Formats: sequence, C-alpha cells, structure tokens
Amino acid sequence: MEYQVVLEEIALEVKGMADPGRVPAYIPELSRVDPGKLGVFLAPLDGDDCGFGDCNERFSVQSIAKVLALGLAFDLEGEALWKRVGVEPSGSPFNSLVQLEYEGGIPRNPLINAGALVLCDILVSRLGRPEQAFLEYVRSISGCQDIDTNPAVAESESGAGFRNTALVNLMKAYGNIHNPVEAVLDLYFSLCAVEMSCRELTAAFGFLAADGVSPATGDRVISLGRSKRINAIMQLCGFYDEAGEFAYRVGLPGKSGVGGGIVAVSPGEYCIATWSPRLNPKGNSCKGMKILEAFTTQTRSSIF
Amino acid sequence: MEYQVVLEEIALEVKGMADPGRVPAYIPELSRVDPGKLGVFLAPLDGDDCGFGDCNERFSVQSIAKVLALGLAFDLEGEALWKRVGVEPSGSPFNSLVQLEYEGGIPRNPLINAGALVLCDILVSRLGRPEQAFLEYVRSISGCQDIDTNPAVAESESGAGFRNTALVNLMKAYGNIHNPVEAVLDLYFSLCAVEMSCRELTAAFGFLAADGVSPATGDRVISLGRSKRINAIMQLCGFYDEAGEFAYRVGLPGKSGVGGGIVAVSPGEYCIATWSPRLNPKGNSCKGMKILEAFTTQTRSSIF
Amino acid sequence: MEYQVVLEEIALEVKGMADPGRVPAYIPELSRVDPGKLGVFLAPLDGDDCGFGDCNERFSVQSIAKVLALGLAFDLEGEALWKRVGVEPSGSPFNSLVQLEYEGGIPRNPLINAGALVLCDILVSRLGRPEQAFLEYVRSISGCQDIDTNPAVAESESGAGFRNTALVNLMKAYGNIHNPVEAVLDLYFSLCAVEMSCRELTAAFGFLAADGVSPATGDRVISLGRSKRINAIMQLCGFYDEAGEFAYRVGLPGKSGVGGGIVAVSPGEYCIATWSPRLNPKGNSCKGMKILEAFTTQTRSSIF
Amino acid sequence: MEYQVVLEEIALEVKGMADPGRVPAYIPELSRVDPGKLGVFLAPLDGDDCGFGDCNERFSVQSIAKVLALGLAFDLEGEALWKRVGVEPSGSPFNSLVQLEYEGGIPRNPLINAGALVLCDILVSRLGRPEQAFLEYVRSISGCQDIDTNPAVAESESGAGFRNTALVNLMKAYGNIHNPVEAVLDLYFSLCAVEMSCRELTAAFGFLAADGVSPATGDRVISLGRSKRINAIMQLCGFYDEAGEFAYRVGLPGKSGVGGGIVAVSPGEYCIATWSPRLNPKGNSCKGMKILEAFTTQTRSSIF
Repeated sequence: MEYQVVLEEIALEVKGMADPGRVPAYIPELSRVDPGKLGVFLAPLDGDDCGFGDCNERFSVQSIAKVLALGLAFDLEGEALWKRVGVEPSGSPFNSLVQLEYEGGIPRNPLINAGALVLCDILVSRLGRPEQAFLEYVRSISGCQDIDTNPAVAESESGAGFRNTALVNLMKAYGNIHNPVEAVLDLYFSLCAVEMSCRELTAAFGFLAADGVSPATGDRVISLGRSKRINAIMQLCGFYDEAGEFAYRVGLPGKSGVGGGIVAVSPGEYCIATWSPRLNPKGNSCKGMKILEAFTTQTRSSIF
Repeated sequence: MEYQVVLEEIALEVKGMADPGRVPAYIPELSRVDPGKLGVFLAPLDGDDCGFGDCNERFSVQSIAKVLALGLAFDLEGEALWKRVGVEPSGSPFNSLVQLEYEGGIPRNPLINAGALVLCDILVSRLGRPEQAFLEYVRSISGCQDIDTNPAVAESESGAGFRNTALVNLMKAYGNIHNPVEAVLDLYFSLCAVEMSCRELTAAFGFLAADGVSPATGDRVISLGRSKRINAIMQLCGFYDEAGEFAYRVGLPGKSGVGGGIVAVSPGEYCIATWSPRLNPKGNSCKGMKILEAFTTQTRSSIF
Repeated sequence: MEYQVVLEEIALEVKGMADPGRVPAYIPELSRVDPGKLGVFLAPLDGDDCGFGDCNERFSVQSIAKVLALGLAFDLEGEALWKRVGVEPSGSPFNSLVQLEYEGGIPRNPLINAGALVLCDILVSRLGRPEQAFLEYVRSISGCQDIDTNPAVAESESGAGFRNTALVNLMKAYGNIHNPVEAVLDLYFSLCAVEMSCRELTAAFGFLAADGVSPATGDRVISLGRSKRINAIMQLCGFYDEAGEFAYRVGLPGKSGVGGGIVAVSPGEYCIATWSPRLNPKGNSCKGMKILEAFTTQTRSSIF
Repeated sequence: MEYQVVLEEIALEVKGMADPGRVPAYIPELSRVDPGKLGVFLAPLDGDDCGFGDCNERFSVQSIAKVLALGLAFDLEGEALWKRVGVEPSGSPFNSLVQLEYEGGIPRNPLINAGALVLCDILVSRLGRPEQAFLEYVRSISGCQDIDTNPAVAESESGAGFRNTALVNLMKAYGNIHNPVEAVLDLYFSLCAVEMSCRELTAAFGFLAADGVSPATGDRVISLGRSKRINAIMQLCGFYDEAGEFAYRVGLPGKSGVGGGIVAVSPGEYCIATWSPRLNPKGNSCKGMKILEAFTTQTRSSIF
C-alpha cells in the first residue's frame, strides 16, 4: 500500500541525515542508550502494518506513559477526574509550579508532570498494587503480554527526582494528593520506566485512533467521547512548550518522551510511533519530528 | 442534505433553552445588542449552504478579526512573522503581561491581544492606509463587498482600552512595536469593530476549510501549509483559557469574539459560524458552544 | 528608670484591650496554648532589666530561631554564605517559590522559609550533631543553659510540612541543598520548636543590640560588621509581608514567630521581647505589635 | 569638627579610585554628563555644613524626587494615601508589573515607578498647576528659590518612557489612576527632571533628619510620625533590588537616582548627599555607595 512506501522512503532519508540533537544526561540509565537507534512503526486501521529500523526494540517510554495513565485514571474516576486536574495548555514550562500556586494546587492538564502525579495519586487510591495494575492495563489494551518496567531506570529517575518531589509535596499542601508522597512518586517513576517498542506503542495507543476500541484486541477500552477528549488533550498539551510547533508541522495529536519516542494518532486512520534518542532543546526527538512531519505532509493526513 | 437537517434541529432546540450567559458590559456599544439574537450558518465545501435564525444580520466580530489579520500579516511578512510572535498557547490570561516580561516582549501567539497588536504593527508598517486595506482584504477573500467597520464601536472600545494601551507600550519598550502606539491601537480597535453576519463569516473563513483557496471566489488566499498553520494556531489558542474545553467539546479549530460570534473550520469539509450574544464566564458564547458541540457530535466531524 | 515605668503602663493598658487576632490552627501543638498569655521583657544595655506578665514562661519561638540560625551559619560559613542566599526583601509571600524558579534556587533572604532551609543545610554540613549543636549555641550566647526543644512541637510541624518539603526539594533540584532533605527538614523543624521565655529571648538576642558582644556573657558572638548585617536583614525581611508596616510603626529591626513571640533590637540601647499568641492576618502577634509601637513612640527610640 | 575631616579624607580617597560603573544610555540627555564628576555634601543638625568636589553643581535628581513627591502627596492626601499605594518592598524589579496584576493595580510602595505614578496622579488631582506647585514645594522646604526643572531632560525621558506609559495605563485599567494618563506622565517626567546640587539636596531632605522640621527654614514640613514613615519607606524600598545591600553597607534610609545622586538621612544627626554618575548594574552610583559606606562605618552612624 502507498502508506508503507512513503514511510520507508522518509525513514531512509531521515536516517541518513545529521542529527543536531542531544541525548539527555539527567537520567543516568537513559544516557547509555545508543544514540544512533532509529525505529518507525505504522498501524493503519485498514491495511497492513509496516515497520522500519529498530521498530521492534524496546526503549523507555517515559512521559508517553502519562497518556496511558490518563486512560486508566479516566476510566476509574470518570468525570470527577476534572475536579483535580484541568484540560488547558500550561504555557511555558516554568509555569507548572507558579500556576499550582495561583490555581490552588490544581495542575493545568494531566500531561505536565504535576498533572501526571495527580493521575498517579488516583491510581494509588483506586488500585491494590498500582504498579502491577498499570502494567496489566497496558498489556491488556495492547495485547502484548510481556511489556514490562525497567527497575534500573525507575531507580535512576527516583534518585534525581527532586523537582517532582517538590511538585507532589506542594500539591499535598493544597490537599490535592491523598496518599503518602512516596507511594505516588514510586508509581510515577515506575510508569515512566515502562519499556515498549514502536510496534508495541502503536498497539497500546491504537484505541485512540479507533474511537476507543483497541484494534489489537477488539475490546472497547474507553467510550468514543472520552477517546476524543484524550486526543484533544494530547493535541493541546502533549508537547510541552512545542505543542504549537508540533500541531503545525505534524498536525496530529501525539505525545513525546525524553527516551526519544513519539506516538501520534490520526483519528479514524492510523497510529504511528517513532524512536530516535537525540532530542531538540525542547526535549522532543529531532528525527522523530522530521519523520512525522514528512509523513503527514506527503500523505496529507494532518487533521488541519 | 443531512447536514442541514441536523443543524436546523439543533438550532431549534438550543434556541428554546435558557441561557445562563451574560452580555459583557465593558464595551458600551456592544451591551446594547438584543441578547436574544441567534444565528447559525453552515457552508460545506460540497453541497448547499444553509442558515438559521439571524444568520444574515451583522454583529461585531471582535477577536474573530484577529485570525483574518493573521492571514493578511502572514501573507505580507512571511515566515519572518514568527520572529515577532510565537505559536504556543499562553496558559492563563494573566500571563499575557507576565510572559511578555519574561520573554522579552514577544507574545506567545497571534490570537492573544498582545499578539494581535503585533499583527497590527506589521500591517501599519506594510500598508498605506491599513484600516482600509484590511477591509479590502476581508471583502476580497469573502466576496462580500459591503463588509464594513462600525466606527461607533471602534470609538467605544478605544475609550476603555487602557490594558491594550499598556500591552502595546510594554512591547514598544522591548522594541517589538515599530510604529507609533496610536496608529497600532487605531488599527486594532478598527478591526475588532468590523461587522459581519454568520453567512459572511463562513465566506471569509472558507479558505481555511479549503486548504487556502477561497470557496467564495476560487482564488488562492494563502498556501496549503500556511492554511494548516493558521488552523493549528486556532485550535491551540483560539479560545483563551477554554481552548482545551472547546477542543474536547467541539473538536474543530475555531475562534470566538466577545460580540457573541464563533467561527469554526472542519478542514476539507465545511466552515460554520454561530452568533448568540450571551457569554460564559470565560468570554465565549454559551449557545454558540452548545450548537457547535451538538453539531460535531451528531455529524461525527470532530477532528479528534 | 523611665523605661520600666513606660513599659509597665503600656503592658497594663494593652493587656486590657480586646484582641481581634487568632491563634493559628495549622500546627496542632501550638493551637493548645492559652491565647490570653501576655509577656514583655526589656533588657537595656545600661540599666536594669524589667519584665511584665508571663515574661518567664517559655513558648515556641518558631521563626524567631531563624535569626539565631543565621548568626551561627554566618559564623561558620563566613561571606561565602551570600553565594547561597540573598539579602533582599522577597515581596509577597507567594514569591518564595516563584522567585526560587527565576533565581536558580537562591532564596531572596535567610529569613523566609527557603532561606532558613539553606541555613539548616549549612549547619548540617558543618556540625556533627546539628540539633544539639544549635541548642548549645543558643545556650552559650544567652547564658541560659536549660533552653531546650519541644519534640512534640517539632513532630507536630513535620507532619504538616509539605510546603517546606516542596521548597527544600526544589532547591535541591537546583543544587543549593547539599545534604539529604530529611536531615535538613529535621533540623529545621527542631529549631523552630525551641522554647524560650521573653527574658531568655532578650538574653539570646542581646549581642545584636551590643555590636556583636553578648551582654549576658561578655563574649563576642560575632563581629560588629556582621551584627549590623543581621540587624539590617531583620529590618528588611523579618516580618514577611508586613516589614514596611513594622518598620513604620515600631521602627526597630525585629523578628516574629507564629508562636506569638516578637523580639526587637535597638542598636546600642536595648533588646525587647513580647509574647501574645493571637496573630493578625499577616501572622504577627497583635498585642506584641501594639506594645512595641507604643514603647518606641513614647521613648522615641525608633531608629527612623 | 570630626565629621568634616573624615568626609574629606574619604572623598579624596574615593575620587582617586577606578570606577567600574557605567553612565546609563537610555536617557539621551543624561548620557552627556561628564562621568568624572564627584560631589559630596554633609549637613549635620548640630555643627557646620561641609562639602567637597562638585557639591554645588546641579544634576538631574531623577528618582530621588519621588521622595519629595511622597512628602507632598502624603501632606495633601493624609492616611488615605495608603489605600492607593502600599508600604512594602517589591522584591525583584520585574515584579512591579506582575504584582500590579495580582494586587489589583495597587503598587507595592511609593518609590517604585508604579507607586510614584500614583503619587503624580494625586498631585494632578489636588493641585492647579502640578509641575509648578511641586517645584514651589521643593523650593520652600529647601529654602533654595531657584531650583528648577530641565525641560530638555523631561522631554528626553518622555520620548523613551514606554514602560512607564504601560504602567500608568495598566493602573488606569484597574481604576487606580483618576486623571488622563498624559497629565500624570507629564508631571512624572517633569519631577524626575528637577536639577539640584548635593548641597540643595541636603537642604531639601533635611526635614527627614530633623523629625519633620526643615533645618533650612525652621518650618515644620510634616509631622514626626509621617517623617518616620517616609524614612522607613526609604530604608526598605529606596534602592530597588539593592535595598538589603545598602541597608547593610551604609545603614541609613536613603534614595538613589539614575542621574548618579544619592541622598541619605541619619535621623537626629545629619543629611548627606553624593553625586557620581557611573552606576553599578543595579542602577546605583558606585562611588556614592563607597563614600557613604566608608562614612557611616568610620563615624559609626549606621542605624543598625
């Protein structure tokens, strides 16, 4: 099919380019990854999947996991979730702490760190063994039973997570964290340390392309309305301070992680994931952005 | 056609609802409008237009005009525009002044007031008689030759525009306003005072639904890529502090004005405009939001 | 002597007044104190001491201890201290977190919570058993060997100290905390829980009235220049958001604590301490402020 | 007398030092001043005046005039003044705009630009010809009948005063400016352009050293209590972001101007003024600070 041809050409071309990005140093375990890795995987709702390069190699999904935590917390908590976290973009990154102050401990959206910490607090409240339960959720919606967390990465992050510890304590001062901060942080570092390949990411995020039903399993993960809401939040808040840039260049709801992964969703069409560890100054994968921009431009699949 | 039937049903139902919103009092001329007005107009790219209620009556488009100013300034200035204004959402409204301070007088995006004032500065620099030239641009892309500004509204706003005067002076202190502040403010108040009907709004915004070509005239207004960029900016920044809510409930790029108008674009499909003067606390038309939400839900035309 | 007569008259008059203030509820142990307590103690450099009311009863000195921590940390660290904490007022209280963000984790001054946490970090680095060493410092400069910490109060605070935990973690993220956050917080809560009477407070702060030499023991505590610096910091930063009000009404360098104590210094003249648990909305003792205002007015001892 | 000997020695020594400071370029008229100028004048309440260097040459007092505007506005408006402007330090300079936003258009204190603009608004409301009336006030309290404004400097500032125009418009949006912004700005630029010599400055500020009575004329300018309040405000707010540094090094209430002048008051003792145009990065005269620091140290006249 055409998609596959286009994707392979783009991937080959981008692979050969110089990459001005840098692998982040602040999470020791991540800095050891081979920066030359490059993977892409495309899962259309109609037609065959196709992959390229290191698309079956697992990497640390990092912040990408926040979207899956949102899916699970939204399912468990329902609309009451929005009393504890907003749905609006957050402006510049510094604002997370500042706006928590002004807005009484309510994070602007679930995809900034403060918001994801509230999601974790909800999961700790609702689930018996939250790390395990989250993993099972990811396995179940993706149909990939051996997705797992890398405990060395979780450990490596928790050792340097002073800013996240500050955020969760500040929100607890406002009454928006109900569990002990350690339990919330443990879950947070654990879910950021989940490892998936590009192929597995498209399996896990497929339900957002398919109006809430997992293409991998055929099961409904979430209602159509909630699937739309999550996509809208990804579009507006999924790329921190580069949301506008990503919306313009790629034109799809998506989410990036500092592990070098990006996943994006074309509602009704396909799910796509890329992996390349070098990041631009805003913390998003340089080559991943390039591949996605070229792909949506050539296939005219930007939603705008 | 189906669109028309759906729209008429929704409009009738919403017309009968109680409206908790309020007509804003701070622009004296606007507060005299009949709050019971309700208009909707739909212009599909394929198929017949259809309207309902007061869809041919003109009202003050207010901030909606910022999108057209962006179209014209982008055309005149090209990519150099993005050195003077960003493309990222702005967080909470107070941030406009605060972020100007931190970000050296560069507004976060062209649809907040500070950003629109930079657009006006560009138009003043580029055009001989900017008020007139802007009107001619709007008339030309819409094919509606008698669209005009209401000078009483422009006057009414300029008398209370101390905050906008503060913004433009602050940006001038940073060197991001090149013309006398009075000329910039005059153009700003003039373009906010342009009056259009719902029908005329869909004609003027049609090029954003049609990849940059005006359906009204058949002429290319802007390139495909720039049309996508403007839609992306509307999606992320068009509803101030309610961008996330609008993205979720309506799921289309759009822009509202305190005159009670909303215009939204379904790329490749249609342009739609509503008018109902009572606003919710965030400054967006209550009934307009309701109509658009019901319409995109029932026609499944949310882009998410 | 005249001082004594004036003070007794004022104390009697203020004791009879209604008190609109409130005992703070957020530290459980403190909320159990009898709100009717009132003590004053004056220690002139020349002439006899005099006291009134509950001037020999110990209470929780809370933030007043920050000044003594500053004295000890300044002595141990020298001028290098000012690389890690500023000497400027902090504006409104919310700014402590915001300004830490903008100013790279350097607190504006040593008397806001963030600044005192840096002092504690220094004491933890420099001293073997910091809680004990701090107590010994206070005992030695005051000549009061049985001054002690109330462990129930320290415990009571540490249970609700989420905002302080947020501050210390945020500063650690910036590299301005060198020890484990728990050790820093333990010392912080311990020194806030030191208990002294008004009499003992004047003994401990006497060196700031006497150019750096303790009147209680005759030993030099700190150089003249450093004594002046601490007084200047108290004047500008000792009363949070009410520094200007205190400077105007009382006109002396001073420090308050939420335990209801205030200590003030008239350089070259005297040290004075008051205790009355009801606080005004800014967190300063109502009757303490009244007594000090009346005293400096009647004795014309404002430094302004 | 001893004061004179000490002062002359210090002035000579400082005159010979290298000066790392810079003359500010943003007010064109000021940048033409000879940067090598140096003047000092001391006016003790008891004993003879003494001067050194260019102490009789006039220069632009700039922000120093704000203190005199405060004296006059306080006299006209009484305690109602404090409903429109606070008495607390403002933290970092950027905060003036930010805090106006949060605190509803009420400036933190009368010596930041926003606060001085409110003083000007009051003077415009209260006085027939405010520029002239202000000059007459300064002449009358100093006994120097030929003190005058330099219109070229006023003009030069008003041409670059975009930030001040932003401030006054923002406050007008909050209702805290009652007159047309042009009238307020005209007075503001006019009073900043008043020219005085060091000798004249000590004559004009003498009442703050003498409990409210002008030593030059023997007339009461203001009550003792209000004189204390103005001194307290100068101490806490007179040196912008360097108030703590000045309090520590010099230890007197004082006020600086970007024209290179500093005036300081030792209550009950003396008034002193210095002039040297090169400024440190915080906008305060380098050599002026040095002279005052040495003088208060050697004469032990710091109030701390």
